[in-house]
Amino acid sequence: MYYIGVDLGGTNVKIGIVNKDGKILRNISIKTKKDVTPQLFIKDISNSIKKLISDFGISTKNIGHIGIGVPGLCDNEAGVVLKAVNINFLNVNLREEMKKYFDIPVYLENDANCAALAEAKFGVSKGYKNSITITLGTGIGGGIIIDNKIYKGFNCASAELGHMSIDIKGNLCNCGRRGCFETYASATALKYQAINVVKNNKDTIIYNMVNGDINKIEARLVFNCAKKNDKVAVQIVDKYMSYLSCGIENLINILQPDIIAIGGGISNAGEYFLEKIRGLIKNSHEMAKDLDKRTKIELAKLGNDAGIIGAAFLG
Amino acid sequence: MYYIGVDLGGTNVKIGIVNKDGKILRNISIKTKKDVTPQLFIKDISNSIKKLISDFGISTKNIGHIGIGVPGLCDNEAGVVLKAVNINFLNVNLREEMKKYFDIPVYLENDANCAALAEAKFGVSKGYKNSITITLGTGIGGGIIIDNKIYKGFNCASAELGHMSIDIKGNLCNCGRRGCFETYASATALKYQAINVVKNNKDTIIYNMVNGDINKIEARLVFNCAKKNDKVAVQIVDKYMSYLSCGIENLINILQPDIIAIGGGISNAGEYFLEKIRGLIKNSHEMAKDLDKRTKIELAKLGNDAGIIGAAFLG
Repeated sequence: MYYIGVDLGGTNVKIGIVNKDGKILRNISIKTKKDVTPQLFIKDISNSIKKLISDFGISTKNIGHIGIGVPGLCDNEAGVVLKAVNINFLNVNLREEMKKYFDIPVYLENDANCAALAEAKFGVSKGYKNSITITLGTGIGGGIIIDNKIYKGFNCASAELGHMSIDIKGNLCNCGRRGCFETYASATALKYQAINVVKNNKDTIIYNMVNGDINKIEARLVFNCAKKNDKVAVQIVDKYMSYLSCGIENLINILQPDIIAIGGGISNAGEYFLEKIRGLIKNSHEMAKDLDKRTKIELAKLGNDAGIIGAAFLG
Repeated sequence: MYYIGVDLGGTNVKIGIVNKDGKILRNISIKTKKDVTPQLFIKDISNSIKKLISDFGISTKNIGHIGIGVPGLCDNEAGVVLKAVNINFLNVNLREEMKKYFDIPVYLENDANCAALAEAKFGVSKGYKNSITITLGTGIGGGIIIDNKIYKGFNCASAELGHMSIDIKGNLCNCGRRGCFETYASATALKYQAINVVKNNKDTIIYNMVNGDINKIEARLVFNCAKKNDKVAVQIVDKYMSYLSCGIENLINILQPDIIAIGGGISNAGEYFLEKIRGLIKNSHEMAKDLDKRTKIELAKLGNDAGIIGAAFLG
């Protein structure tokens, strides 16, 4: 038996045929259509799924179910996408629409939750009952797995880890609160932290690497320069990591998961990043600090495939 | 069938016979003994339990099990209190000791988790699958119920909600971190916030009520004066509530529980307190802010009995 995983993004829709071991056997990517009705867009996705299945030489009879990861709030019980602004979905009954084209179960779930499920089933969090996956990208995405299942909260809106405040008097966030984790610890946040430093201190290879156009600074570049021991870059990274570790320590003190997997653009900095963050994380609340068993901090393993794989294992 | 609930505190040990409806039918309180070995102290507790049972006119055959709430880290699977500094327990096999005196199951659990379980089974969180109980007292205690069960984390150390930082550059906490929730939003924190304000502004009935001895200011007094519309007291309370709401919003954004129950000394301010905190709490992350379903904020209902009742329903 095979499963279809769909990673419905703001730019592309990635569709994969996944086997029971979490391997993507064949996949395609189509453009996200925002200029048509959700109904027409879903028809388009369904046709692509059908084509993928037939190109692979099987039929829908060989498909156990279809799982769809959505960049927004999903009520899987009702089969409804409550809200996904990036793809212009508001209260769209995705399951009902898909049922027009397929006679197999259709499940849906928030995309960050799918990624967390994929890591828990086949990635770095495999074998652990309670895990958190944090994605450090444009914002901060999160998924919480408790007792091997996605933890959604009663209204399907949990795990908005990026909107935990770590500074009550801090930066104003789009959400209306101050000091949200993602305004300090996303890849975007690092970019602007770097721009602000380099603006006033050009004695760094970061400045040379962007030929003086500081708006071209990206998170990856800052890490690359830090790895080369550029003093300014190291300072920027260390400051950034202090914010990141603050949020992660909060999550540990609240949930004490077996493992926290870190993915997204920032995690491409690999071992350099991992060593720094582990050095900063303390299981520091009074009661836990002498414990032998500490939450593990690891890099997420499945990268961009996590969305498809996790979606394929919904249900 | 009846159950024994034991609330093992730093000052007193409260023991109750509880029926299946969560009612305490008879209870006693003995002094906590810190000057004897844990083994002798446990023997003392066991004798008190036996006396309570016989005074009630039943025998241990009528008791389903004994549950014990401990102010520290407990590994219920192993039956061991890992660490409870207030009662000088370090790696004490509480179950094994109790088995010397009783031939029925013995369960143990952190006391804040017991209180959360009691609220979820018989208190204000009854009927809700996912709830959090926050106790605002000397520190901030917390218990998380997920899927009707205590969520302990893999190392039994979860729900240390008081050690979530809400200000990365803020007050230094005993735990070593900065800006911990309990340094801003416990009853102790409110006391010191009030002392600092009244020190410099004596034009408040708070000052009169303590006859000018500002060290006598207590959280309850500040709330009482605020209820009388004392301007300074209202300012102190409002500032305090802004910290409290920041931490609670964090928990909502992370876990979206059905309900958050607030107990401890501060919650004695009742409706006045409840109205203020509800006014400040926003389900404010971008995705959730239009949702109809919001986390409920309520006062905990079981007060000092929660510890005994929750303990009686462990297992």
